[in-house]
Amino acid sequence: MASYPPSFMRLVEELARLPGIGQKTAQRLALHVLKAEAGRARALAQSLLDLHATTRTCRQCFNLSQGELCTICSDASRDPSMLCVVEEPQDLSALERTGDYKGLYHLLMGSLSPMNGIGPEELKVKELLARASREGIKEVILATNADVEGEATALYLARLIKPLGIKVTRLASGLPMGGDLEYADEVTLSRALEGRREV
Amino acid sequence: MASYPPSFMRLVEELARLPGIGQKTAQRLALHVLKAEAGRARALAQSLLDLHATTRTCRQCFNLSQGELCTICSDASRDPSMLCVVEEPQDLSALERTGDYKGLYHLLMGSLSPMNGIGPEELKVKELLARASREGIKEVILATNADVEGEATALYLARLIKPLGIKVTRLASGLPMGGDLEYADEVTLSRALEGRREV
Repeated sequence: MASYPPSFMRLVEELARLPGIGQKTAQRLALHVLKAEAGRARALAQSLLDLHATTRTCRQCFNLSQGELCTICSDASRDPSMLCVVEEPQDLSALERTGDYKGLYHLLMGSLSPMNGIGPEELKVKELLARASREGIKEVILATNADVEGEATALYLARLIKPLGIKVTRLASGLPMGGDLEYADEVTLSRALEGRREV
Repeated sequence: MASYPPSFMRLVEELARLPGIGQKTAQRLALHVLKAEAGRARALAQSLLDLHATTRTCRQCFNLSQGELCTICSDASRDPSMLCVVEEPQDLSALERTGDYKGLYHLLMGSLSPMNGIGPEELKVKELLARASREGIKEVILATNADVEGEATALYLARLIKPLGIKVTRLASGLPMGGDLEYADEVTLSRALEGRREV
């Protein structure tokens, strides 16, 4: 590595701090940036500098937002009686890509994980309960991940929200579309059996 | 994607222009940058801005360099009678990591690839021949990659340099250390056979 000049090594080190990017990938990326025109590096640098200054979280649902309220919360055409609870912004993004959901969201900003010291206090649970009891919410969809933490979080939230007289649902688990029975794990298969539907 | 604010999407787009980084990875990286403290984003941005301003190529060997001459070319302890020809800076970096080579380098900045319109004019071949004939070079090691383009480039350069009365060598090809015979491809195996040595 001593064969690279210091400014190059600094970029490699900064890139290697990003998740999933090791020293070799960082080197490859830095070489790419160096070969590309300087304008590209400047554009990337500028977008990095702008990010923290112009991105905040929506005060209602905690989605990423430019203003006080995110584009979804301030969209009058969305159904305010439906609340979909997700863990992170990328989960919301995935659901939005389906184009099938027209209600509002609530981001927990994580999932319950006692092992990592993440309890209800560390998540936006208090805010969720306040929203659920204040507004005319008819249904809360618990769309936390289908892993252990996500399931536990959904169970925990269901126990808190059901007493408010609100319908609480969970995303279906089962075989992914295009999935082979042969390659499905046992838990997924038993969930798919359990949730079988008449055709 | 409409669920993300514009400044966030700009960063995602800029990151997705990097090689090997798709939309999903770019989103994950951008979320990581957003979650980390703003100082980290600023440090990465600064190193991107500094890169083009402070990194150039060594005027002698075309390695990345801060000054006119790179650290290797300006190192008086290196043997100036040996010249190792590589394709790219990362190849030089790989050879330097072995710590076994004490001569100088020459970077071609690519390999011959007529399909992509890269002929000798696009590479630092003229400069290599000038160095080889000017200085007291005793040996030129052709360390281009062991792929089709690299082999062709090595063959081409050997034909040009040998008439200058200089010893021309090529890195050995054969089984990688720790490699299983069973998993070696035919070309590698026949090269290993061809290059077998008495023990």
